[in-house]
Amino acid sequence: MRVEIWSDIACPWCYVGKARFEKALSAFPHRDRVEVVHRSFELDPGRARDDIQPVITMLTRKYGMSEAQAEAGEDHLGAQAAAEGLPYRTRGRDHGSTFDMHRLLHFARERGRQEQLLDLLYRANFAEERSVFNDDDRLVELAAAAGLDADAAREVLSDPDAYAAEVRADEREAAQLGANGVPFFVLDRTYGVSGAQPAEVFTRALTQAWGERPPLRPIDGGSVPSADGDQVCGPDGCAVPGH
Amino acid sequence: MRVEIWSDIACPWCYVGKARFEKALSAFPHRDRVEVVHRSFELDPGRARDDIQPVITMLTRKYGMSEAQAEAGEDHLGAQAAAEGLPYRTRGRDHGSTFDMHRLLHFARERGRQEQLLDLLYRANFAEERSVFNDDDRLVELAAAAGLDADAAREVLSDPDAYAAEVRADEREAAQLGANGVPFFVLDRTYGVSGAQPAEVFTRALTQAWGERPPLRPIDGGSVPSADGDQVCGPDGCAVPGH
Repeated sequence: MRVEIWSDIACPWCYVGKARFEKALSAFPHRDRVEVVHRSFELDPGRARDDIQPVITMLTRKYGMSEAQAEAGEDHLGAQAAAEGLPYRTRGRDHGSTFDMHRLLHFARERGRQEQLLDLLYRANFAEERSVFNDDDRLVELAAAAGLDADAAREVLSDPDAYAAEVRADEREAAQLGANGVPFFVLDRTYGVSGAQPAEVFTRALTQAWGERPPLRPIDGGSVPSADGDQVCGPDGCAVPGH
Repeated sequence: MRVEIWSDIACPWCYVGKARFEKALSAFPHRDRVEVVHRSFELDPGRARDDIQPVITMLTRKYGMSEAQAEAGEDHLGAQAAAEGLPYRTRGRDHGSTFDMHRLLHFARERGRQEQLLDLLYRANFAEERSVFNDDDRLVELAAAAGLDADAAREVLSDPDAYAAEVRADEREAAQLGANGVPFFVLDRTYGVSGAQPAEVFTRALTQAWGERPPLRPIDGGSVPSADGDQVCGPDGCAVPGH
């Protein structure tokens, strides 16, 4: 089974939801057969790379919250994170473009290091003092800590086109699947779950998707497997005309 | 879209079918959004690692063919391969266990080099004089040519448990999906195509699977996306109680 998770590094519920999903997954009996793929979603796709703001300032300006409301929101998110054992700086975090991080996550996926890099990016963004935005040196450090080649990571970061199409395609696909927020979980392209649901909900989703996979469909007019067994090799050898 | 292809390195129709599928894929307008994953299937899972036979001998002993029939079958397969521009030695090939090659293909997948390795394994098995069976040095060479680290590949080969569970799991999954022969193609876990079908059939399968992806299902009682928008971050910020 494959679980695709659309998320943004700047999304606190994605950070919390990942931990909740992983709690469910670690107790799932078929966990060794579940492949997790992280997909890109930017909450703030229009933001320029060098446009960095304190989170509280962004919340008051962009959503018209009072400073007290913004701080209360951060406190609530911090408490939810803490309940999952995750560190969270409720004051002093920055907000900025995550596009380059998503590009780097696609590169990491190709190298089998996506999960490691995403965890480090979340940790750096939500729990560490040094900002992750518009700072290639910092991202290269994190990429290397995730097991990626530092020079290759720097090359990806310095070419704004590298993996940009992949990020945009993930975002288009999220829209096609009906996601207007993240985290968004898709199991075997069959079941969808939106939000940082409690672990029990993810357990139910995993169980249901595992148990109720609908049978494969043939393409129009055909059958699966093909009725004539033509051009197939099987336990009785390879089908060859005349044999 | 994801296409999973179950195949065996020792399966001539898989070698031919891969080329036909790729012909269709290379002309498919959404090819950049199609991810291909190769899955393990052994035609001869009981064969011991050091039990190597000439293909013609295996065909006469295992399937009771006459030598002339076996040779005619190889000639037919060679002609089908040639029609796809693939080299094929119709005489003198060996048959043996492919288990270690499947383990290596799983390792290669983790490193983003599965496609490259599979092409080299096919080429080595079907077109080159030197046997690929029970020869770690040969497999390490091919792994290195596919861009993998030679020492890491050798380590995988010398540990018979490395990626063995992944191979077995692929094989169980093939059976669950109804495949009793290969190649077997599964598109987004929704559509199935069996056999080395002509490229036109793969074109139809890609087009149909791309255009007719059924909507995501909610898990029982829920909705997708969740109706309450709870614990989600979206264009209007992150849902936090009281805001």
